[in-house]
Amino acid sequence: MSRICKHVEALEGYVPGEQPHFPGMVKLNTNENPYPPSPKVGEALARFDWRMLRLYPDPVFTQVRKVIAANVGCREGQIFVGNGSDEILALFTRAFVEVGGTIGYFDPTYSLYSVLAAIRDARGKPLPLNADFTCPTPPADFSDVFVWTNPNAPTSLLAEPGQIAAFAKTYAGILLVDEAYADFAPADCMALASAPGNDNLLVMRTLSKSFSLAGLRFGYCVGPEPLIAALYKIKDSYNMDALAQLIGAAALSDLPYMRANVAKIQATRARLTAALERRGWHVLPSASNFLFAKPPAPTRAADLFAALRDRHVYVRYFPAPVTAEWLRITVGSDPEADRLLATLDALIP
Amino acid sequence: MSRICKHVEALEGYVPGEQPHFPGMVKLNTNENPYPPSPKVGEALARFDWRMLRLYPDPVFTQVRKVIAANVGCREGQIFVGNGSDEILALFTRAFVEVGGTIGYFDPTYSLYSVLAAIRDARGKPLPLNADFTCPTPPADFSDVFVWTNPNAPTSLLAEPGQIAAFAKTYAGILLVDEAYADFAPADCMALASAPGNDNLLVMRTLSKSFSLAGLRFGYCVGPEPLIAALYKIKDSYNMDALAQLIGAAALSDLPYMRANVAKIQATRARLTAALERRGWHVLPSASNFLFAKPPAPTRAADLFAALRDRHVYVRYFPAPVTAEWLRITVGSDPEADRLLATLDALIP
Repeated sequence: MSRICKHVEALEGYVPGEQPHFPGMVKLNTNENPYPPSPKVGEALARFDWRMLRLYPDPVFTQVRKVIAANVGCREGQIFVGNGSDEILALFTRAFVEVGGTIGYFDPTYSLYSVLAAIRDARGKPLPLNADFTCPTPPADFSDVFVWTNPNAPTSLLAEPGQIAAFAKTYAGILLVDEAYADFAPADCMALASAPGNDNLLVMRTLSKSFSLAGLRFGYCVGPEPLIAALYKIKDSYNMDALAQLIGAAALSDLPYMRANVAKIQATRARLTAALERRGWHVLPSASNFLFAKPPAPTRAADLFAALRDRHVYVRYFPAPVTAEWLRITVGSDPEADRLLATLDALIP
Repeated sequence: MSRICKHVEALEGYVPGEQPHFPGMVKLNTNENPYPPSPKVGEALARFDWRMLRLYPDPVFTQVRKVIAANVGCREGQIFVGNGSDEILALFTRAFVEVGGTIGYFDPTYSLYSVLAAIRDARGKPLPLNADFTCPTPPADFSDVFVWTNPNAPTSLLAEPGQIAAFAKTYAGILLVDEAYADFAPADCMALASAPGNDNLLVMRTLSKSFSLAGLRFGYCVGPEPLIAALYKIKDSYNMDALAQLIGAAALSDLPYMRANVAKIQATRARLTAALERRGWHVLPSASNFLFAKPPAPTRAADLFAALRDRHVYVRYFPAPVTAEWLRITVGSDPEADRLLATLDALIP
């Protein structure tokens, strides 16, 4: 007798993403930020009395929500915070998708959504992107919920907030806009999420990218209070530990530092895009901290991925047919971009 | 149209536990440890380079599992780690209980299990304790899974591992032994969980109590590899942040410090038990870091709870009929026990 749930037995075993760390490597494969988090993070940690870890943390992260509410211009009751935006995504599927229900998303997009659909015992419903990798507007009855990644990954393209707002108005389900990369983009949907009259749109952010805190696990979500309240109902009692609350609040209180880092990455992004284009690459206009780029024929993306890796330059390759000729390359620091370009020049003379 | 899942709409809104903190209060209501975590935690934090938080953490907590495997004497593949044992409990219900299935537990016990059953859209199935608050052995077909809290809360009583081992052998479902308080007890089931031939028993621990790390959120679970693998399949990709992994490993590497704290708490437990018994209380023989104690007639537990609270001494009261005449009192430090006793003496002359 098997006693593991049927849909769990059917899942592939968990395969962690490739996270190698060794001296001299160039790690441009998981969209980490090349710059450290705000010095206010270091100061908060230095001031923190570790002896207080003996006490439970604030279960509803009051201080963190105050900071986010001030940044966003919304009420604290419109804010949920999770142990990474991955946790919020998982709670989202359990709060708003019945078993056997449907979760819509684009194809290609962040690969976690289809995994979460399988974990929820729901049906993932991919909607193919247009041939130029832009997002079509999904039909109003496409799925019970829809996760719209904007800017999208791995394509790096931004859909205009107007397109998303128009879709939300017609959509019968709940729309989650995953804005993991929004701080690198010229526009976002946060104002829509907190606007009066909105009853089906949530916007999610993470501190992993623009705030340089991938190691922390800190995501948040803004939207209509009834939907946010549903997430609180099903969360673990103390889902955010005391240090995550402390560090998250410190980082979110230092927007100028984050914005200065983003500006540096945007400058490197422009420089790297131009350098690749000069070498005959096709690079989509990125609104994120990574490039989606196609090497010039006859170089095959799969071969180049492997050759770069042999030279300790890690980028990301997605073998599905629609992405098979492309690489996703994190925009790191200028020296990392130079290393990448020098390695490419050695490989593609 | 409601778009929130039916069983989520039916849930009570989340009510966080009472976590007041103010100078001069005596906080004996949530079983926190009165002593700080190991100095190795402070050293690890002081050495930690916060700039590295820009990188993702190890998704499978390799270093942490090495430490636990050495402590427990099991293989690393037998170990799962969660963002608090609450996260492990939630994953447990989703991996091993189908929607509409049954989750067994004693009544009374840790109140989270019935909440988790409701969140999973499963059926909680409470099994009443014996009249003396000891645990009956559940029938072999009682439920799809059973969570056996040992020592139990709020009763503080230990069931002998032999009783639990015998039950596991007959039980058709999966048994999770929640050993949150086991370090304060004279016996535990950890050896059963890692033993060859065991295919349905998991043992769960937390660093919140004996390791003084309630603020961290760190639980772990040991059991047969196929069951542990099912938990990995459905966990969030990066459920343990870098600091939690660092601090957890540091604390778990310093068992002598934890054991010395436990010995101090056991000594205070004996002293407080004797002092209450001298005052006519009925105190169950505690194997945990709290007492389950009944004040002498005609004092009513509910009234005493409120009167203590008015005097800034916080204990826990459960109004259900079976516990209505009892208080749950965390064993704090000796000065805290003295403050409690002095306040009681003023209230019950």
